Amino acid sequence: MLSIGERINGMFREIGQAIGDQNKQVIQDCARRQLEAGADVLDVNIGPAAADEQAAMTWLVHTIREVTDARLSLDSTKPAVIRAGLEACTGNKMINSTTGVPEKMAEMLPLAAEFNCPIVGLCIDAEGVPRDAEGRMEVALNLVAGCMEHGIPTNQLYIDPVILPVNALQHVPQEVCRAIGMVSALADPPPKTVLGLSNVSQGTTKRKLLNRTFLVMALAHGLDAAIVDVTDERLMEAMIAAEVLMNKQVYCDDFVHAYLASRR
Amino acid sequence: MLSIGERINGMFREIGQAIGDQNKQVIQDCARRQLEAGADVLDVNIGPAAADEQAAMTWLVHTIREVTDARLSLDSTKPAVIRAGLEACTGNKMINSTTGVPEKMAEMLPLAAEFNCPIVGLCIDAEGVPRDAEGRMEVALNLVAGCMEHGIPTNQLYIDPVILPVNALQHVPQEVCRAIGMVSALADPPPKTVLGLSNVSQGTTKRKLLNRTFLVMALAHGLDAAIVDVTDERLMEAMIAAEVLMNKQVYCDDFVHAYLASRR
Repeated sequence: MLSIGERINGMFREIGQAIGDQNKQVIQDCARRQLEAGADVLDVNIGPAAADEQAAMTWLVHTIREVTDARLSLDSTKPAVIRAGLEACTGNKMINSTTGVPEKMAEMLPLAAEFNCPIVGLCIDAEGVPRDAEGRMEVALNLVAGCMEHGIPTNQLYIDPVILPVNALQHVPQEVCRAIGMVSALADPPPKTVLGLSNVSQGTTKRKLLNRTFLVMALAHGLDAAIVDVTDERLMEAMIAAEVLMNKQVYCDDFVHAYLASRR
Repeated sequence: MLSIGERINGMFREIGQAIGDQNKQVIQDCARRQLEAGADVLDVNIGPAAADEQAAMTWLVHTIREVTDARLSLDSTKPAVIRAGLEACTGNKMINSTTGVPEKMAEMLPLAAEFNCPIVGLCIDAEGVPRDAEGRMEVALNLVAGCMEHGIPTNQLYIDPVILPVNALQHVPQEVCRAIGMVSALADPPPKTVLGLSNVSQGTTKRKLLNRTFLVMALAHGLDAAIVDVTDERLMEAMIAAEVLMNKQVYCDDFVHAYLASRR
């Protein structure tokens, strides 16, 4: 599984303040900590606070690039902010995200084509998040069609079926698992799947238990990537065990350590 | 999920000795401990050592029945030992197990019919455990046909796809997950599914991590029951979280405690 570290996000107080103060140390420490914990990719989100959003994204990408060549996931709903990140980012990158709303696809998909990088496509249309797996697949098909129109290879598309808080909508986790199992039939080469995991436990009192349990459930249905708190050791341990059980990492007696060592 | 406590098994040194010494206290403490930890059913296996096996099973069942009315899973490969257990056991019971080998079905299925109780059917035929999910379904279909011939309702059959140690056969966990997803289409009313979970981690150094991770994966594919170490708190916590995420237990903020309280 591609693990995308979620911590460089201006929504977190410490990161938001570091962006405001242009405090490189805090950002670079956060990047290093996530890579050390096993992240394959770092999500980069300026959060709600920044005054000049494009300048903030540019500064954030440059700051992270001083300490790592890891793939960056440029995370914003605004095409101009994504473009600033793409232009600042040497090496591997991806776009997080477009929805299936036609106007949003028309803004975001050309960026994925121009910069030749993967893009996350959320199963959200003009009416919001569909109720079931089939509704999610309708949106996913529109995302696939959009990629084809823009010359983006379908395996550069990461479909996110959108998990919602289990305490509010208890039928959703099952639908998301079913949706993950359906994505590989949508195109050839098949699109990949990704989740913004932590949303499943929003507002609950057992966030880490629900996060790691749902991650394992989604992996059992073939999930390819997830935006997670990689610094949660029990989450990473569960993820690595699931990878071994899915025959995606070779078994050895010390498989948790072997996996993490291969990332560092 | 129906959780079947695995600890009353003569294979464990303390239990084997208690059976030999007719030490009721040890057996009854083990029964109470598992029920307190959340077991729905107690597996009862005399193990390899007993001299008079039928007498040992009879004593074991009577000893457990002095402290609980919980369902007992009478566990032996020998029909005479199963019969002794069935005759000794008032109230709820089940048979663990038959294979799909015709001679074994001919011995075991009549007992399930006579005592009107569920039976576990292992996906094992004359050649052993099939390689993939499809092979397991061939055996499962024979088990379903056998139940129909003997007038056993198909939803009294618990199909066990047979998990093998991941360190030896790393492709098996995925096949078992696929098999679990296929069982409900075999008959109407659908057979149920069960696993002897701990086998997945036999011979590994991270037994508990692999056990609880694989249990969650199997639950994500619809597993109905498992023979587990219910005294492993992190396993039970993972199982309960997966039940909430599968919408099989109603969410509340203290869902682990609520689940266990409902069992006690």
